[in-house]
Amino acid sequence: MTQANQPSTQTWSQRFESTLHPAIADFNASIHFDIQLIEYDLTGSQAHAEMLAKTGIISADEGAELVRGLEQIRQEYRQGNFTPGTDAEDVHFAVERRLTELVGDVGKKLHTARSRNDQVGTDTRLYLRDQIQQIRQQIRQFQEVLLSLASQHVRTLIPGYTHLQRAQPISLAHHLLAYFEMTQRDWQRLGEICQRVNISPLGSGALAGTTFPIDRHFAAERLNFGGVYANSLDGVSDRDFAIEFLCAASLIMVHLSRLSEEVILWASQEFSFVSLKDSCATGSSIMPQKKNPDVPELVRGKTGRVFGHLQAMLVLMKGLPLAYNKDLQEDKEALFDGVKTVKVCLEAMTILLSEGLEFQTARLTEAVNEDFSNATDVADYLAKKGVPFREAYGLVGKVVKTSLAANKLLKDLTLDEWKDLHPAFEADVYDAIAPEQVVSARNSYGGTGFEQVQKALEDAQKRVKEE
Amino acid sequence: MTQANQPSTQTWSQRFESTLHPAIADFNASIHFDIQLIEYDLTGSQAHAEMLAKTGIISADEGAELVRGLEQIRQEYRQGNFTPGTDAEDVHFAVERRLTELVGDVGKKLHTARSRNDQVGTDTRLYLRDQIQQIRQQIRQFQEVLLSLASQHVRTLIPGYTHLQRAQPISLAHHLLAYFEMTQRDWQRLGEICQRVNISPLGSGALAGTTFPIDRHFAAERLNFGGVYANSLDGVSDRDFAIEFLCAASLIMVHLSRLSEEVILWASQEFSFVSLKDSCATGSSIMPQKKNPDVPELVRGKTGRVFGHLQAMLVLMKGLPLAYNKDLQEDKEALFDGVKTVKVCLEAMTILLSEGLEFQTARLTEAVNEDFSNATDVADYLAKKGVPFREAYGLVGKVVKTSLAANKLLKDLTLDEWKDLHPAFEADVYDAIAPEQVVSARNSYGGTGFEQVQKALEDAQKRVKEE
Amino acid sequence: MTQANQPSTQTWSQRFESTLHPAIADFNASIHFDIQLIEYDLTGSQAHAEMLAKTGIISADEGAELVRGLEQIRQEYRQGNFTPGTDAEDVHFAVERRLTELVGDVGKKLHTARSRNDQVGTDTRLYLRDQIQQIRQQIRQFQEVLLSLASQHVRTLIPGYTHLQRAQPISLAHHLLAYFEMTQRDWQRLGEICQRVNISPLGSGALAGTTFPIDRHFAAERLNFGGVYANSLDGVSDRDFAIEFLCAASLIMVHLSRLSEEVILWASQEFSFVSLKDSCATGSSIMPQKKNPDVPELVRGKTGRVFGHLQAMLVLMKGLPLAYNKDLQEDKEALFDGVKTVKVCLEAMTILLSEGLEFQTARLTEAVNEDFSNATDVADYLAKKGVPFREAYGLVGKVVKTSLAANKLLKDLTLDEWKDLHPAFEADVYDAIAPEQVVSARNSYGGTGFEQVQKALEDAQKRVKEE
Amino acid sequence: MTQANQPSTQTWSQRFESTLHPAIADFNASIHFDIQLIEYDLTGSQAHAEMLAKTGIISADEGAELVRGLEQIRQEYRQGNFTPGTDAEDVHFAVERRLTELVGDVGKKLHTARSRNDQVGTDTRLYLRDQIQQIRQQIRQFQEVLLSLASQHVRTLIPGYTHLQRAQPISLAHHLLAYFEMTQRDWQRLGEICQRVNISPLGSGALAGTTFPIDRHFAAERLNFGGVYANSLDGVSDRDFAIEFLCAASLIMVHLSRLSEEVILWASQEFSFVSLKDSCATGSSIMPQKKNPDVPELVRGKTGRVFGHLQAMLVLMKGLPLAYNKDLQEDKEALFDGVKTVKVCLEAMTILLSEGLEFQTARLTEAVNEDFSNATDVADYLAKKGVPFREAYGLVGKVVKTSLAANKLLKDLTLDEWKDLHPAFEADVYDAIAPEQVVSARNSYGGTGFEQVQKALEDAQKRVKEE
Repeated sequence: MTQANQPSTQTWSQRFESTLHPAIADFNASIHFDIQLIEYDLTGSQAHAEMLAKTGIISADEGAELVRGLEQIRQEYRQGNFTPGTDAEDVHFAVERRLTELVGDVGKKLHTARSRNDQVGTDTRLYLRDQIQQIRQQIRQFQEVLLSLASQHVRTLIPGYTHLQRAQPISLAHHLLAYFEMTQRDWQRLGEICQRVNISPLGSGALAGTTFPIDRHFAAERLNFGGVYANSLDGVSDRDFAIEFLCAASLIMVHLSRLSEEVILWASQEFSFVSLKDSCATGSSIMPQKKNPDVPELVRGKTGRVFGHLQAMLVLMKGLPLAYNKDLQEDKEALFDGVKTVKVCLEAMTILLSEGLEFQTARLTEAVNEDFSNATDVADYLAKKGVPFREAYGLVGKVVKTSLAANKLLKDLTLDEWKDLHPAFEADVYDAIAPEQVVSARNSYGGTGFEQVQKALEDAQKRVKEE
Repeated sequence: MTQANQPSTQTWSQRFESTLHPAIADFNASIHFDIQLIEYDLTGSQAHAEMLAKTGIISADEGAELVRGLEQIRQEYRQGNFTPGTDAEDVHFAVERRLTELVGDVGKKLHTARSRNDQVGTDTRLYLRDQIQQIRQQIRQFQEVLLSLASQHVRTLIPGYTHLQRAQPISLAHHLLAYFEMTQRDWQRLGEICQRVNISPLGSGALAGTTFPIDRHFAAERLNFGGVYANSLDGVSDRDFAIEFLCAASLIMVHLSRLSEEVILWASQEFSFVSLKDSCATGSSIMPQKKNPDVPELVRGKTGRVFGHLQAMLVLMKGLPLAYNKDLQEDKEALFDGVKTVKVCLEAMTILLSEGLEFQTARLTEAVNEDFSNATDVADYLAKKGVPFREAYGLVGKVVKTSLAANKLLKDLTLDEWKDLHPAFEADVYDAIAPEQVVSARNSYGGTGFEQVQKALEDAQKRVKEE
Repeated sequence: MTQANQPSTQTWSQRFESTLHPAIADFNASIHFDIQLIEYDLTGSQAHAEMLAKTGIISADEGAELVRGLEQIRQEYRQGNFTPGTDAEDVHFAVERRLTELVGDVGKKLHTARSRNDQVGTDTRLYLRDQIQQIRQQIRQFQEVLLSLASQHVRTLIPGYTHLQRAQPISLAHHLLAYFEMTQRDWQRLGEICQRVNISPLGSGALAGTTFPIDRHFAAERLNFGGVYANSLDGVSDRDFAIEFLCAASLIMVHLSRLSEEVILWASQEFSFVSLKDSCATGSSIMPQKKNPDVPELVRGKTGRVFGHLQAMLVLMKGLPLAYNKDLQEDKEALFDGVKTVKVCLEAMTILLSEGLEFQTARLTEAVNEDFSNATDVADYLAKKGVPFREAYGLVGKVVKTSLAANKLLKDLTLDEWKDLHPAFEADVYDAIAPEQVVSARNSYGGTGFEQVQKALEDAQKRVKEE
Repeated sequence: MTQANQPSTQTWSQRFESTLHPAIADFNASIHFDIQLIEYDLTGSQAHAEMLAKTGIISADEGAELVRGLEQIRQEYRQGNFTPGTDAEDVHFAVERRLTELVGDVGKKLHTARSRNDQVGTDTRLYLRDQIQQIRQQIRQFQEVLLSLASQHVRTLIPGYTHLQRAQPISLAHHLLAYFEMTQRDWQRLGEICQRVNISPLGSGALAGTTFPIDRHFAAERLNFGGVYANSLDGVSDRDFAIEFLCAASLIMVHLSRLSEEVILWASQEFSFVSLKDSCATGSSIMPQKKNPDVPELVRGKTGRVFGHLQAMLVLMKGLPLAYNKDLQEDKEALFDGVKTVKVCLEAMTILLSEGLEFQTARLTEAVNEDFSNATDVADYLAKKGVPFREAYGLVGKVVKTSLAANKLLKDLTLDEWKDLHPAFEADVYDAIAPEQVVSARNSYGGTGFEQVQKALEDAQKRVKEE
């Protein structure tokens, strides 16, 4: 079936004499994107109808009839038979109109004690609550891949960087677990935000509540909300929850973009720390040799998109007087695309890590043996023998300089050369600066020492089980 | 016809052994939005083919065959018969594939001496050049409505505000002409930007130019470009033009949002400076008396959306190494939506001004007679009689204070009261503070004096004829 | 005393031969803004020194000496005697240098088992934790002013708006309590964020932990941190906490900007809902009658500033490879200015509400009696008599239209006119549409009915006592 | 001398009875940042005074006296003797007050026919015009360094990248010239924007012009403005010019951030394409071997800062009703910091390129010989022999795959192996794939062929002479 093309003036009261300019009707209409909310709208309306019946505002039979009619629309929608056009203005009117076709005059009672303002707020929260749950599950899947990789690479060494300069060698697992921590904060943050998303505005009316003896708590419980808005003006005009979500989404993108940048670096010929598999790489239209890391590049590129939505939503809200203003209709597309972007990026990065790349361990081993990233350990060595750290640090800088000039690494210095530098050096300095030992020795809590990393890994495995 | 579902590995060289993960193929694909570029892509490819033939890289017959095949795809597209799916990856591959179906092996020569990198850059510039022309025309239409309204209201007075406090009465035409000036800058700015949009990257190749003896200037002229990129790396990785456009688009939105805010204020019961017509207003789902200014509210709301796209594009480009990176694929949706948003907002505001509202002149006349917005004129009056301005200003503040306390306006003061304030006052003070005279007297260039406004209006009418 | 102008190469190891270019030294230096962190830096270093002594890495005497020297620097700073110049590069080096002047060689041991990377992270978190507490207290003060005002205005009516059109009259207290709810979320959100701010990175070293047997939990407890970072790479490169704060700060600004917009409207001659007092208003340099609402205008204007800082910080982090990068130095000015802006705006708005404006209750009473904002109540009246809501709504729209044409309000209709509209109307319709009753009847939970508002006020008074 | 501490109510008219709340006075004051405008303010006021005298609004003697007094303040300021405090509110009042101290009552005539609204607009434009000139000169210096480097490296090869994967070898000069093109657009864009900055709002008055017979064009010419605002409302409320500048500034930062990213990559041990000199690198506080590219990291980090200011300014303007609103005071700090950031970054990058790094040509030569970046040339080779490009491309992909598996490069293939692949191969294929030839052969306009690069360099040297 299709929507009968009723004149759009029917939408509003008989206060209006003439119809909307067609271009303006198009401009105002939100049906092309808010149709995404339809199942949440139906569920919300069913709870509202049940509440109306429970409180005696309508009869029990009327309530049942409304619930049944709404369910029928759900089936029509799922079967692809409910496709309202622009004349419907928005999903709410489209549903109400169809409902009246299906159940007759009782359909006109559905909107008793309710306004589109609290209705759309309810729909959006139900939607976002659902999406947040899905995103949190995706984070868990991503983390499981991280942990699985980490468990294979506790003893794989990789150069650790600051300023993209080799700093100190680290355990590859330790590196991967940094992303576990970031996404763990994402997971927690979304959980906290969801508490504020999961509050019912239903019953706030247009802005001031209603004259009917409604039971907001009953409807909220039917919808599994954790609470109800305490102020009706706030209930219809609050979009904090969407902004908070887009900030959390932006942080997820920050984290994924950092990992993306690293994968792009690692996959370069210069680094060659990973090789990309064909299933997650693409070629060039002209250069036959190319194998490009499109996935992390696109993820990095999509980061700005989510930042942009956050910014758009903040701009939207700035300086709006109470209560509802039509500007708020613009919250949806930003939110929907923010949700979608985060979801596809999490999915793509999960696939990339789990089956799209391979760490080149031979190259990694070579890398950690060819630099001066053990220099701090020499300074620490001296400091432990009583040389003030700042002095030891100065001395080691000097030996780095002379070694570089001589094209030598620290391990190439003779014991005599060490002793010339400072008499405290003994033969055990060679052990102290071997990459394995350099990593192993950083056994402070949260450090890259293998023992610590193993503990951190096990701890992470426990945390990932939390719901 | 539909595209045969060819395995996507065919897309790239035989370097690849296995196919893309289906979720990754979806993630990478841009066909669902870059199909918008198809006509520009076809046009660009036709010029490329002609250039290949002209320079002898392919034969004249081959060139003609390619041009013909591309034209056939254009017809198929226009008739709704060319609807490539995700397996096509992007519009460029979709076209090349279909071309080869249509013209056979010669189709495989089209991509000679070209890369997708310079191709997509060409397409995007052709698209944006076209859109900018359309937006400039829309600005002209908007300005014509402004000028038509202004010409009716040169002598209609309206309170002028600073800090949303009544400041000095002004001509309504003068107020409207302020928006003419803003949009005139928009019009000029877009013209300047278009110079930088209208440069051809075609022939930049993947990044470094090509080994074929191409003639970039020939192809550029066929496409009416104003110049060619002087550096191939820059040619494939520059997105300045899109950012510049989005900044100009943001400024258009700033201007429209300011006018929107004013219309919203004017339509409030408190101001009642305009009444909204049914064709451009909407009602409430619950409050039968409501007539809401949805158009300016939505325009104001959409402002942040364009700012967000500008921001997203800047973020996209930040820190990208040369030359092309896949991140750049993300330029399109922001650009497309920015273009679309500006266009629908300009259209909606043009309709709103031309047929959606009516100035309530009786109310405006009442308004300019009920306040102290003539106080500056009293200070000016004294200053012209030799009282230093700062002193005159102080005195007038005092008389405002006592008048307010006495619930009087300045026109209600007796001549004795004026003389008590300062002996320089004469009977002509009453003329000086009558709203008509207050406006008329501001006859400095660019001021609200009727004579100036009439000149400004005529000047604007001339400027709007410029192309 | 002043810092001796030591050559800046001393700062780093002897690896370096020549000094920094002076312009580059200026460019890199952060001392001109990170000096704000000095007290947090001293406190953090004292805890680090105590930890070093406690774990035997240095002797107890050395530890005590370091703590004493650091305390002496604190005194010098507070007395204005510690003013390091650009040559000090940053506050951390400035302190370490002065410490060594004061306590001799033992000063060179302070940096044992620590890096500037974990040090600056510690300082910034101590700073932000402190500032968040201050901001939360300011929110409480703001809320107390709101509640005090609300308690005076439970029965003061004010027009309620949607789309800036009169919608339904409400209690002024109800309106004010909407801002209580918004700021209550701000208060809670800051509390949650503070949990993530209050985690210690100290002991993360440069990126990988340390080879010394440190006790991170001991140091963290000395500094009242709620936990320690579980991964050292994350510890030195995480700035989520700053971004989360700036998002929360942006939301505070959204709320204040909405209230600001309302005060600006209310203070306009057209609304005249409030009068501004001289203590919180400013004049014009030229128009003697002006009294401008500068405070809310500036607050509204400063909103973008905080959004800008949030954006800057997100951009900063996008795509940074692990672990520390110098880019991160740019986190501070955005954070500092964000903190400062929120604090001055909260203070200014608190003063404005508490002593800068007065509600014009006579005007408000007049306002709620002069419009059609009781139209919903007529529809509800009919709906309660069994007319389906959508039908009732249609009928009332019609009566609004004819009344407007006749220049009448609903209260001016005769009972016969009502009965002509629908036979269900009785004489009690006049009661139902009196503004007091219209407000009173919205007695649903969270609605504007006086009973509800009184309860909400009492509940808010309780909640404001928490923490 | 210092400003006498006059009660701040004196600032405004006698309409005000009581003084500003001290915290609100601080909140409103802009003197702590707008003092930066003082010299522009003095110059603007001198031109205004001359205009007042020229038009007879004040006497010639009075005009001269005002000009002299303003010049004296300029001298006091330059000597550090003019340091107004917060009580002065802003630089304009501070100057007017001091002027009246210096020249007596005639000082009170300066503000005749002017408002702070047009005054501050004038000052800001004079400031920005000046800064844009300075930035353009800095761009020229930066470009000269680029050209100087390029002239040394026309024949130095460096790998060219797409997707950070080796794509095709290029001339290092060609790479550097890409940045010339970007900054050339920056230079042009700033020139165009300056046309819109350089318009005089002086004489717009508070919003509506003035009743005095002023000569706006005279004053504008004295200040070297290129035109005057045609509409007074627009004149006092337009901030397009500042937004346009911040967009141009953001683009400069985009370009510098891209170069920064590349330098950071090049300086990594993995790339080793450049070595950093001590004068432009910094060390670590703990790792003695470190030499960090702080300059490009900071530049990259400061990019978001400028984007943030652009965003803040757009947000500021959104939805402001005409004409002046106090929000506009917030334009300055964003603008000032944007200007400063761009200037220091341009300076730092100019120093970095000219004396802070050295290209490692031996390493570059090695790099271009060790990869498959000549694969396109093989496909082109075949295409030139008549094999359709898409087919040639497919074949070459295959040979890349088998070579990789055999751990061979293309140059290692025997002629037989080539012929097996396709009979069209001859011995000249070895020449075609030698890096020097690969680069040289891309001799299309704008390509990396040496001949083209040399021409492009010469052309750039000419363009850089333009003013």
